Amino acid sequence: MLIKTLVNELRGLIASKDGDALRRFFVIGNPGLNAEVLSHLDVAEIVEILRYIDPLYGAELFAHLPAEQQRIVVDSLSRRRLILLVAAMPHDDRVDLLKRMPDEEREAILPGLAQAERDDILKLSSYAEGTAGSIMTSEYVALSAHMTVAEAIAKLRAEAPDAETIYYAYVVDENRRLRGLVSLKDLILAPSHKKVEAIMNADVIFARADEDQEEAVRKIAKYDLLALPVINGNEALVGIITHDDAMDVAHEEATEDFHKSGTVGKIEGSLKTAGAWLLYRKRVFWLVVLVFGNIFSGAGIAYFEDTIASYVALVFFLPLLIDSGGNAGSQAATLMVRALATGEVVMRDWVKMLGREVLVATGLGLTMAVAVSGLGLFRGGPEIALVVASTMVVVVVVGSLIGMSLPFALTKLKFDPATASAPLITSIADAAGVIIYFTIATAILPGLA
Amino acid sequence: MLIKTLVNELRGLIASKDGDALRRFFVIGNPGLNAEVLSHLDVAEIVEILRYIDPLYGAELFAHLPAEQQRIVVDSLSRRRLILLVAAMPHDDRVDLLKRMPDEEREAILPGLAQAERDDILKLSSYAEGTAGSIMTSEYVALSAHMTVAEAIAKLRAEAPDAETIYYAYVVDENRRLRGLVSLKDLILAPSHKKVEAIMNADVIFARADEDQEEAVRKIAKYDLLALPVINGNEALVGIITHDDAMDVAHEEATEDFHKSGTVGKIEGSLKTAGAWLLYRKRVFWLVVLVFGNIFSGAGIAYFEDTIASYVALVFFLPLLIDSGGNAGSQAATLMVRALATGEVVMRDWVKMLGREVLVATGLGLTMAVAVSGLGLFRGGPEIALVVASTMVVVVVVGSLIGMSLPFALTKLKFDPATASAPLITSIADAAGVIIYFTIATAILPGLA
Repeated sequence: MLIKTLVNELRGLIASKDGDALRRFFVIGNPGLNAEVLSHLDVAEIVEILRYIDPLYGAELFAHLPAEQQRIVVDSLSRRRLILLVAAMPHDDRVDLLKRMPDEEREAILPGLAQAERDDILKLSSYAEGTAGSIMTSEYVALSAHMTVAEAIAKLRAEAPDAETIYYAYVVDENRRLRGLVSLKDLILAPSHKKVEAIMNADVIFARADEDQEEAVRKIAKYDLLALPVINGNEALVGIITHDDAMDVAHEEATEDFHKSGTVGKIEGSLKTAGAWLLYRKRVFWLVVLVFGNIFSGAGIAYFEDTIASYVALVFFLPLLIDSGGNAGSQAATLMVRALATGEVVMRDWVKMLGREVLVATGLGLTMAVAVSGLGLFRGGPEIALVVASTMVVVVVVGSLIGMSLPFALTKLKFDPATASAPLITSIADAAGVIIYFTIATAILPGLA
Repeated sequence: MLIKTLVNELRGLIASKDGDALRRFFVIGNPGLNAEVLSHLDVAEIVEILRYIDPLYGAELFAHLPAEQQRIVVDSLSRRRLILLVAAMPHDDRVDLLKRMPDEEREAILPGLAQAERDDILKLSSYAEGTAGSIMTSEYVALSAHMTVAEAIAKLRAEAPDAETIYYAYVVDENRRLRGLVSLKDLILAPSHKKVEAIMNADVIFARADEDQEEAVRKIAKYDLLALPVINGNEALVGIITHDDAMDVAHEEATEDFHKSGTVGKIEGSLKTAGAWLLYRKRVFWLVVLVFGNIFSGAGIAYFEDTIASYVALVFFLPLLIDSGGNAGSQAATLMVRALATGEVVMRDWVKMLGREVLVATGLGLTMAVAVSGLGLFRGGPEIALVVASTMVVVVVVGSLIGMSLPFALTKLKFDPATASAPLITSIADAAGVIIYFTIATAILPGLA
């Protein structure tokens, strides 16, 4: 509703070519909200608006547009205007935009930028995807420890339009080594003649540029930070990660892990607009792998063909038993994958967790054995019931242990633990279940041993 | 490493009973980090520290401790000291603490608090779990539109120690209706004689107290906010949700959905320290439900007993085919569950998505049919191969359509779409797969029709 009203208002202003009113429309307000309004307009209208409003604010709005829309706007701007836009964009968003551009297009823009801007782009784009360095921005305010509070506030005020946040400022020495943190709150509460040194917090929580972005995001969440400073190998401050970017990364990582739990590959952009071919590619790999994985269950069944021929009733319980092992295993894997992803559990916890898992799984297996034994009795008589009940306990324990251990094993082998998805666990537990089931049946049922 | 050093330093200060040094230790620095240091101490040491340091800061530190540790500290404080602590705590954390207390304990504390504090607790605890109201705090700064910038900054400065954030202040009218938002950045950049009215943003993004907490958290993430104001039915400002609490809620919701995807119930507190009995209870429900769900597959098999007895080789492909339907269905469900949870996809998108899903699933089914037909030929001859390949296409399409539709159906029926877990989809797809498989087999193989 609000968005619709604002879109109509904006269309009216564009039609009347009232530059002042257009500028006023955008002068205050949340850039995310204004960008959402903008995203409902045609490219020609967006380009028209960017012509009128403050370039710095226009660049921030542009940075909030969805990637596909940025692409179209970029294509319809002249080289000169595109360079101005890129120069004014938030530094982290600008690097993302340039990375998405074809090489020749990027190379057409870069020479138009000032040396300092080019250096900044080079620096920010030099960190590998997935590192803290790759999500940081260089727009922070740095202070010297010897400044007074009044001088520090004046510096924040002067740099405010270019900074991603002025609520945290970082204190650095002459080699740009991180010495402390002061918040704007500390500054406005302190007497104006005091030295920054006297009010700064010297135990700053920071990230290293090459550390995992998830680790950095975790620190922001754990310590309720507005921003996290990032330092390089020489301990020099090179950037900050802001709370909003951290939230976006946490959101993307959660989606990626969730998709992995259903054996779907990483999907960039919106599911709603994703094409059929993209979805096919993201799904086919694991489905085919699992087809071949299931051949082991089939081979197990083939091996016990005589047992099945003698007791066809055993087949009745086959999906139930192998699924139960897979289900218990999926539960155990799900718990571990998430706990490893959030850092709540680490590698060395495995042994401790294993003992508890045996206890829990035995309890679960016994409960499910009770649930199913009545059915076994009714369908196949006391001997089949005994086979089914004992198999149930064993498959649930084995499935659970596989499920809880696989995420640790994958981590150890430097794979993502989230690869231990329900379908993968199900396939492994199926093969184990077939062998356990028919081995127990062969041992217990008469005329088979 | 840092934590260890700080713990040792702190232990030294406690031993020397140096109150000044203890106060200095805590006077600045991140409360989350300091609370982490604190959490490594014994209860007696924590109580000792709380005696020395500023009560307001002590209460904030206490609020950052894990719930179990808060519990132990509460038990070892006198009633008088507990009341002082509760009075000084951040308002949202204090409500959470009181909600966790046994009734008699809470009733022993409440009368010791001032009327205003009791009213605040009553107000904050009146919102149902899961609503925006239940995660808000009442510690925000409210301004009047007629104040000057200088007056507004003075008010922020005065209320800073009691406010959760002073970086956003909300402009309200005489009836406390939300009129606008000013950031501290806007204030320090504006001339000090200007009216708040002239610099405030009037299009404030807000939440209603009874709206879903996930919806509120989504707004904070989408619009990169530091805090989101919450209004009641009379449009009056009643609280704010801060970015750090929003991040915690997003994290918890993601964990809960992830656990649901593996049919594990909601686990409060840490997985690492969770007891075996708790884990048993969180896992047993769905496992037993799925046992009974699997009876349908078994019944399907029993119905086709003659077909199986004639062609035992069909059993060889059973786990493979029914798993494939379940796997494709799990993928489709996973994508929809996450997209519905993040709000990227809404109910009315179902029909549009259905067409694409048929296309994608047919492609996947054909690919998997090719992968498996060689095996069918080798194991059972051309007729079995034909049965297996055709079944594969049909089960993958049917499984995918069930998987993608179930989350929508659950949403429509007011259930959480995340209930459409991989194990549940597998059970449903299994029953469908058994019927499809043997129906096709009966139709194609000689001597069965």
